Amino acid sequence: MKLHMELGARGYDIAVERGCLAGAGALLRLERRVLIVTDEGVPAQYAAAVASACAKPLVVTVPQGEDSKSLATLETLLKAMLSAGFTRGDCVCAVGGGVPGDLAGFAAATYMRGIDFYNIPTTLLSQVDSSIGGKTAVNLGGVKNIVGAFWQPKKVLIDPDTLRTLDARTLACGMAEAVKTALIGDAALFGLFEAGRAAGEPETVIARSLAVKKAVVEADERESGLRKTLNFGHTIGHAIEAVTGLPHGESVALGMLPMCAEAVRARLLPVLEGLGLPTQVRADPEAVYAELLHDKKMGDGGITAVFVETPGQSELRQVQPEALRAGIEMVVKA
Amino acid sequence: MKLHMELGARGYDIAVERGCLAGAGALLRLERRVLIVTDEGVPAQYAAAVASACAKPLVVTVPQGEDSKSLATLETLLKAMLSAGFTRGDCVCAVGGGVPGDLAGFAAATYMRGIDFYNIPTTLLSQVDSSIGGKTAVNLGGVKNIVGAFWQPKKVLIDPDTLRTLDARTLACGMAEAVKTALIGDAALFGLFEAGRAAGEPETVIARSLAVKKAVVEADERESGLRKTLNFGHTIGHAIEAVTGLPHGESVALGMLPMCAEAVRARLLPVLEGLGLPTQVRADPEAVYAELLHDKKMGDGGITAVFVETPGQSELRQVQPEALRAGIEMVVKA
Repeated sequence: MKLHMELGARGYDIAVERGCLAGAGALLRLERRVLIVTDEGVPAQYAAAVASACAKPLVVTVPQGEDSKSLATLETLLKAMLSAGFTRGDCVCAVGGGVPGDLAGFAAATYMRGIDFYNIPTTLLSQVDSSIGGKTAVNLGGVKNIVGAFWQPKKVLIDPDTLRTLDARTLACGMAEAVKTALIGDAALFGLFEAGRAAGEPETVIARSLAVKKAVVEADERESGLRKTLNFGHTIGHAIEAVTGLPHGESVALGMLPMCAEAVRARLLPVLEGLGLPTQVRADPEAVYAELLHDKKMGDGGITAVFVETPGQSELRQVQPEALRAGIEMVVKA
Repeated sequence: MKLHMELGARGYDIAVERGCLAGAGALLRLERRVLIVTDEGVPAQYAAAVASACAKPLVVTVPQGEDSKSLATLETLLKAMLSAGFTRGDCVCAVGGGVPGDLAGFAAATYMRGIDFYNIPTTLLSQVDSSIGGKTAVNLGGVKNIVGAFWQPKKVLIDPDTLRTLDARTLACGMAEAVKTALIGDAALFGLFEAGRAAGEPETVIARSLAVKKAVVEADERESGLRKTLNFGHTIGHAIEAVTGLPHGESVALGMLPMCAEAVRARLLPVLEGLGLPTQVRADPEAVYAELLHDKKMGDGGITAVFVETPGQSELRQVQPEALRAGIEMVVKA
């Protein structure tokens, strides 16, 4: 299956196809210098498969985890490109989850003021969400994604076969992000989750999630309005993630619960439980609240928060952080 | 005088007006958090004048010189914004020459994936050249401007009164960049230089130079073709600058000479001499050549070099670096 992100001159294809990773050489322009960025948690054969299709590959494997999304690691990548003589005609390719994707994308966005970027997400979470849309970033001062650029990839390859190497917990984290997408934009996909059929149909989950995200990004590339709906579950979720160290998907699962109408929450709870995702976490709610105050999405007018009153429909509301305190206490218990 | 850069949604006004720095409060949206970036070489009263018009100013003064265009200084600026609670609605304002401009512009381009940027150039060089066009960058590994972004300012304020505080050498460096602009796009402006009238008419020099640059940027915002003509004198110039430490404008003056037809060079020599700019420099030509090989503008197909056969007209030629060796030896003598 092929989707096309309609962004004018910045538009690109998204290929969703079993086995496409092995066929990267036919789908991407690799007859030039290619920086392949992956991390230690990604099976090495994926980056190796892409490298074998490149004329001049340069593979950099960063440590697994959010700590690699730093200005220091960015500098390492940029210096590697510089030493290898990368020019404006060369490119960067991410192979892995959101960490290599965000980091490599930002390196591509800034090297010589921007060179081509390819994204090959190999986790469900990145396949349904972060690999398309052009958000690249690193963290700074303990704040996630505070430094970055909007830089669209030239192409995205999604090979569902890579899901076979994911452990159950990582897979569930990806499902959490797909549940988020369903709740904000695709009631039928949420129905698939409620019917317990999502785990058995990962390609449907990927395709439907991408369709929702694609439409949102096309309407609001730079997140000036509508695109903020994709942050559903993330305001409280990011704060939980920062304080507890829980994986991103589990944190988002928790973060969604307080932001639903009660009737939606009653349906969401069994969906999350069925996927093996948490619905409560033991931590200090005050610490989570303090972290939320630090959140980058807070302007002087408060926080733009996303609420879901009906599955498949979301709305943005400007709230004061204090209004989210009870929500935090709903899922974070000391 | 007011110019408008026509770049669709990214378009902006450029005000050229004596005294406009003191009136910044009326021309810019300063009723929000404003990071003012200046350097130690810029008279402190300029940044202070802007700060006094801001509700929440945060002034960061970086050391003078190219060394401040680093990822480390960028991180300092980003952390300062983070600590002060800057959000997407806040902004960055550069006050000074190309160093604060390039650095502050890149910080604005990357903080939260891009916030508003204002540029108030106070040197002739930045007024005629770097302050418009949206090129932002820092240096890395000894290579100039290798990491950056295209990020257009929201407005540019040019106050010719600031030229009064420039020393003669710095003023001459600005004139060098204006001579460059004249040679590639405005024969009449070159005539003004030949007549020895440029020094006495800085506002004309600024306005005419900006008009040439504006047209080039509008036609090729991201430097995929025509805009490269603005690099006239810079291929050899940057290499000379890196090896000798000469100021940018003097290096560009030297770098232009080999890239002209002989008849043009014969007219350019007295112009440069009249402005107090060098036409030869003592250094190792081989070191300059080695530096040039390192230059970021070199693709596998060689270097895109700019030549001027007739004042006011330029052309791009793809050359092998070897072809520039004789040019270097023309102006760099051991």
